[in-house]
Amino acid sequence: MLNVITLAEAEAVARSLGERTKLNTTEVPLSGACGRILAEPLRNKENVPAFRRSTIDGYALFAPDSYGASESSPVPLLITGEVLMGQAAEMKGKKGACVRIPTGGMLPEGYNAVIPVEYTEEDGFGNCLLSKSVSPLENVTNVGDDVKEGETILPAGTLLAPLHIGVLAAAGFAEVPVIKKLKVGVISTGNEIVGVEQNPLPGQVRDVNTHLLSALCEQMHCEVTSYGVIADEKTVFTDTLLRAANENDAVLLSGGSSAGTMDLTAETIDAAGDLFVHGVAVKPGKPTLIGRVGNSAVFGLPGHPAAAYFITLSVVKAFIEAVYGIDMPEKTVTARLTEHVSSNHGREEFLCVSLKNSDATPVYGKSGVISQLTRSDGYLLISRNSEGLAAGTAVTVRLFGEGII
Amino acid sequence: MLNVITLAEAEAVARSLGERTKLNTTEVPLSGACGRILAEPLRNKENVPAFRRSTIDGYALFAPDSYGASESSPVPLLITGEVLMGQAAEMKGKKGACVRIPTGGMLPEGYNAVIPVEYTEEDGFGNCLLSKSVSPLENVTNVGDDVKEGETILPAGTLLAPLHIGVLAAAGFAEVPVIKKLKVGVISTGNEIVGVEQNPLPGQVRDVNTHLLSALCEQMHCEVTSYGVIADEKTVFTDTLLRAANENDAVLLSGGSSAGTMDLTAETIDAAGDLFVHGVAVKPGKPTLIGRVGNSAVFGLPGHPAAAYFITLSVVKAFIEAVYGIDMPEKTVTARLTEHVSSNHGREEFLCVSLKNSDATPVYGKSGVISQLTRSDGYLLISRNSEGLAAGTAVTVRLFGEGII
Repeated sequence: MLNVITLAEAEAVARSLGERTKLNTTEVPLSGACGRILAEPLRNKENVPAFRRSTIDGYALFAPDSYGASESSPVPLLITGEVLMGQAAEMKGKKGACVRIPTGGMLPEGYNAVIPVEYTEEDGFGNCLLSKSVSPLENVTNVGDDVKEGETILPAGTLLAPLHIGVLAAAGFAEVPVIKKLKVGVISTGNEIVGVEQNPLPGQVRDVNTHLLSALCEQMHCEVTSYGVIADEKTVFTDTLLRAANENDAVLLSGGSSAGTMDLTAETIDAAGDLFVHGVAVKPGKPTLIGRVGNSAVFGLPGHPAAAYFITLSVVKAFIEAVYGIDMPEKTVTARLTEHVSSNHGREEFLCVSLKNSDATPVYGKSGVISQLTRSDGYLLISRNSEGLAAGTAVTVRLFGEGII
Repeated sequence: MLNVITLAEAEAVARSLGERTKLNTTEVPLSGACGRILAEPLRNKENVPAFRRSTIDGYALFAPDSYGASESSPVPLLITGEVLMGQAAEMKGKKGACVRIPTGGMLPEGYNAVIPVEYTEEDGFGNCLLSKSVSPLENVTNVGDDVKEGETILPAGTLLAPLHIGVLAAAGFAEVPVIKKLKVGVISTGNEIVGVEQNPLPGQVRDVNTHLLSALCEQMHCEVTSYGVIADEKTVFTDTLLRAANENDAVLLSGGSSAGTMDLTAETIDAAGDLFVHGVAVKPGKPTLIGRVGNSAVFGLPGHPAAAYFITLSVVKAFIEAVYGIDMPEKTVTARLTEHVSSNHGREEFLCVSLKNSDATPVYGKSGVISQLTRSDGYLLISRNSEGLAAGTAVTVRLFGEGII
């Protein structure tokens, strides 16, 4: 078990846990594949086009038959038929002969070029007179020119977006092999926590974290199960954690604000499995725990919603990205600080800011959760080595409410 | 009916149709509210905090009772009780007396300040000796300091992200009034179009657009119904369009590649309703139609999947943004062209590009749909007034596969 570590070290521990988390593959219909992650490279099942196709209106022929043709000495070829658009060319190509063909038409077997209609003339006796020679494959799209059979069209690990859905439709994938969603169990703890529909009595607060963390994890492509709010009581705590760890690939426990809850969480993880991280040098977010119970990763998150949000978007996101093998960057903008921000000497700090044009003004959380978050547009992370940031410093602001891509 | 217009003009027509499309309100549980759009401003139902709260451990008192207290002449106040954490303060505050109070504890009615424990001493006879004076509201969070009752916490039209879900939980909204999803019907037309699960015969192609456009519209917060692939036949065409227009707020018809299909679509819209736009000066995407049938907006899109994609992300997106009153920016990066791109004299052009570091290389679509799209990372829009773009020009590339926010 490590002592207090940096945020980057905590993310590295989370990533290494994620790399060891294996998810099974499942098949979903194409209509449900958007937003899922491809489990294996998809190879094209056929050549596209599957046949030689003319790129112009003209006559399909065997190229060497045209050699030597010119306006002064046209070469005659017997017209033996016509290829129709959207139909297979059933005839076989014969030397010394040709067939009429439209743009997009299929070349008969044995033919390898098309002469444009403007370099020909029909003589009224069933012959086509060529006034120019053509080379093999001239005016022809060859088999597999778009995609060859067996060629990889999308690599494993692709996060499927609408455009990929179009590509899969074109390539004939009605069912798509995707990685099963990461199953995440969410547990809120604390004697003072009441349901959203309740009116908190003095000293009580509503359960924000179950809802906040569930929405965040669903946005990060996870399947979330809520285990509700449980009391700060060792037996209940242990039973719920073991059940959630058994039923999920990861468990997020978000504790009350008390130090006692963090200790209880740490002891429970340590007793039921392994505790790897006990405290992170970041403000807010110090009471962060990382461990494992059975095959499930376990994250103990701070009780304060803003802190739980920041740690989920750093440590838990690093874990999920490693499991899926994808990046989920937050949307950022560059802005200038409107006022001085003091430093924290040795621990990083998440700072809420409001944005106006390109000005970022710190929003401090003295007066409570709701107003701090609704008055902010995003947040920034101040380096642990920072000596404070002067007014006018350019900072990268990660945007709230813009989702994760 | 307008003749060929610019892309910006087409987007303006779409926006004005969108502004006239009214969607009803529905209530959803908080767990299903992420990604939905708030139908009305949400006002806080209560003051937070709902009671005066101590920010420190100390003694709650009536501030004027402390005036004149100093280390050399401490003021004694009778200790009449203790406020417990998480419980209502049932006692009433009396002048000349005080009660013990913990951090976060509720101030008894009649008291208006808290003196820190370190400026006090208990005398063993039931009195607390104050060695300093405190002002009214000193060390107290007042009623409504976080949010006042009736204050707007989220405005109408907010696209709800995880953080908003947290704010709604804190404010006690278990049910959330949201705008009903825009209902979009998708129709693919063309005799040559076959299902994804089929092997296309020569001249046939698989139905890409139903899947591509459905995924795209779902990502843009719409509820999509597919009407399948219908033949280029007037009666079938009219019947399906009327049915889809009756059942949806918008209909996307994506035609085959032929000019005949575009004309049939235009005639059908004109006969059943109003046709506002017939052709847009953009490449690819010229055969774009905008009209209205009954209360439904109707968009005729090009048959080529890349063109249908580009027009959906410009014209149809402008419509959806206007309906919902939100912006859905595509994710962009700035890159430099690696080669010269020729101009189009008077019409805008969408150009696929592949990205490597910050270099953008044009990907032309000669060899077909699949390889063009899988070899590209995004696209750019070249202005109709451009005289061509030189190698090295900085361009804004809209990214494929990164979704819409």
